[in-house]
Amino acid sequence: MLPLPVLEQARDEMLEWRGGMSVMEVSHRSKAFIAVARQAEADLRELLAVPPSYKVLFMQGGATAQFSAVPQNLAAPDATADYLNTGHWSQRTIAEARRFVRVHLAADEAASGYSTVPAQAALALTPGAAYVHYTPNETIHGVEFPYVPETAGAPLVADMSSTLLSRPVDVSRFGLIYAGAQKNIGPSGITVVIVRDDLAGRARAATPLVFDYRAVAEAESMQNTPPTFGWYVAGLVFQWLKRQGGLEAMARRNRDKAAMLYGAIDASDFYSNPVARNCRSWMNVPFRLARTELEPVFLAEAEAAGLANLAGHRAVGGLRASIYNAMPAEGVRALVDFMRDFERRHG
Amino acid sequence: MLPLPVLEQARDEMLEWRGGMSVMEVSHRSKAFIAVARQAEADLRELLAVPPSYKVLFMQGGATAQFSAVPQNLAAPDATADYLNTGHWSQRTIAEARRFVRVHLAADEAASGYSTVPAQAALALTPGAAYVHYTPNETIHGVEFPYVPETAGAPLVADMSSTLLSRPVDVSRFGLIYAGAQKNIGPSGITVVIVRDDLAGRARAATPLVFDYRAVAEAESMQNTPPTFGWYVAGLVFQWLKRQGGLEAMARRNRDKAAMLYGAIDASDFYSNPVARNCRSWMNVPFRLARTELEPVFLAEAEAAGLANLAGHRAVGGLRASIYNAMPAEGVRALVDFMRDFERRHG
Repeated sequence: MLPLPVLEQARDEMLEWRGGMSVMEVSHRSKAFIAVARQAEADLRELLAVPPSYKVLFMQGGATAQFSAVPQNLAAPDATADYLNTGHWSQRTIAEARRFVRVHLAADEAASGYSTVPAQAALALTPGAAYVHYTPNETIHGVEFPYVPETAGAPLVADMSSTLLSRPVDVSRFGLIYAGAQKNIGPSGITVVIVRDDLAGRARAATPLVFDYRAVAEAESMQNTPPTFGWYVAGLVFQWLKRQGGLEAMARRNRDKAAMLYGAIDASDFYSNPVARNCRSWMNVPFRLARTELEPVFLAEAEAAGLANLAGHRAVGGLRASIYNAMPAEGVRALVDFMRDFERRHG
Repeated sequence: MLPLPVLEQARDEMLEWRGGMSVMEVSHRSKAFIAVARQAEADLRELLAVPPSYKVLFMQGGATAQFSAVPQNLAAPDATADYLNTGHWSQRTIAEARRFVRVHLAADEAASGYSTVPAQAALALTPGAAYVHYTPNETIHGVEFPYVPETAGAPLVADMSSTLLSRPVDVSRFGLIYAGAQKNIGPSGITVVIVRDDLAGRARAATPLVFDYRAVAEAESMQNTPPTFGWYVAGLVFQWLKRQGGLEAMARRNRDKAAMLYGAIDASDFYSNPVARNCRSWMNVPFRLARTELEPVFLAEAEAAGLANLAGHRAVGGLRASIYNAMPAEGVRALVDFMRDFERRHG
């Protein structure tokens, strides 16, 4: 979901942008596009208060590409990297990382059915680990870290695909942050990477140039023709976020939206959410009906009422509401109203 | 440059696509998007008459990513691969390939200033080479192969970023074809890869999953969230090409456009093109003025007359017209008229 004003501007500028051709036709080497790219980086830096000692990169291949780029840039093949397994996306990350580095599971929440996250004291960190990787928010299981892990000196790496820009984050706590764009940043096809200077420049010899953080930084993310249209739309989203009051304002909104939805779920035995209360996601809210046979009915009636995309991921089933930045409070209100009405009719 | 009807449709569907949300917001796992993706592949296969024994992949990272993906998928680290060096893009390709495989230069046109291509008989092919790589069209130097090289059995690999879809091609002559989208296919951010089945499945152990052709094929190019909007626009371009009469019709148009422009250049000593006549590009036409000090004046007056993007690449200077599929004959006619008028006034 993208903010409506962003879609409207993209539509209005589709044929004629800044008095000329379509933005989809502008060369990435043109002054006009370079201005767009630099403004987008400046706005992203401002929104997140990125320290000057970090590079901001616009890459391709989604978070999935970073699953290999992280070990290739940050670790020798025989080094050990710590990973925290807290759900589907952690598992995907770890499976790819094992092909490039020795993975030590410093935490594994599989036994809980991924309904919680490990406490800081429970992390079995490796002394001298090349880095510690975690997934602050698991979109499928709906669990979220309520804290930023301490790593005893190892660079902390986070896949923030589903939370970046949903609230402020203290970038200085991290060695590297990456995020696919399609949740809170812009259209799919672009990946934001924020990497501390000292971690860019250590890529292995056989790292593809397009995944070498230093090479990407030196080329200002333009080694190859970048996804210019996606970069431009992401820039419109950054401007929209600034107009909304920045990330403190988004955090208030997102917290309120989540509280409204969890409140409705917890207020009734008709609905339930399996996640421990201290680590419930602000972004992805999985829920079940006590009578699971009613779930297909719920989905069909919700769709008919204009509430789309409420099926749980096929890996876990059930229902799931994703309430990213672009989802207005009224959208959550409409869902909660529908849930109450559905319970009244079927409960 | 993109066809105007394609831009208009993308604009009109920006806010509401097929009765629902924006196409930029549709999940890549939705039935609606999967139908778009499959139709795009089917149309591309039809346009190029791709044999069923080839996979068609939609990847990311541009041709630059393929510079490393090709050796990682097609050769062992100690194998030898033959490369033909015919200009700037060959050089970029070779520099990256050397990091992954032993490169043998089976031809090197540097001495000609990249004003020609090697003859078939001049290719110094390595017996048993893992593959032979060439760049059929060099966008900066404006040279183009008038023939498809014979390789004595080694798979032929071609970077067709600037020619794919500009004319028919006998795919069966190639082991692998790749092309960044931004010339003739669609917006930047998507890369088409056409690979013979037996060449997908031989990736080295440390190949990033997003660059492993078999893994990409098995995931139907959706290991990570693909650039859905770019894929959709590429699909619109494929439909437009079919409405134009397919690639035979495009070849006639492109040949005629190039003939008109080279004719104007050759008709006057005021203008010149440095490339041997048998290998002049249909897509990129570099040219100089006999009085080079007039070139900045030419550029300024052309821009004022609505003729944009005529500066030569900074690596070679001078002037260059790129006349890809979406450039109508009238656009070339306008340039030729301007050139004659400019000569009349300054010659």
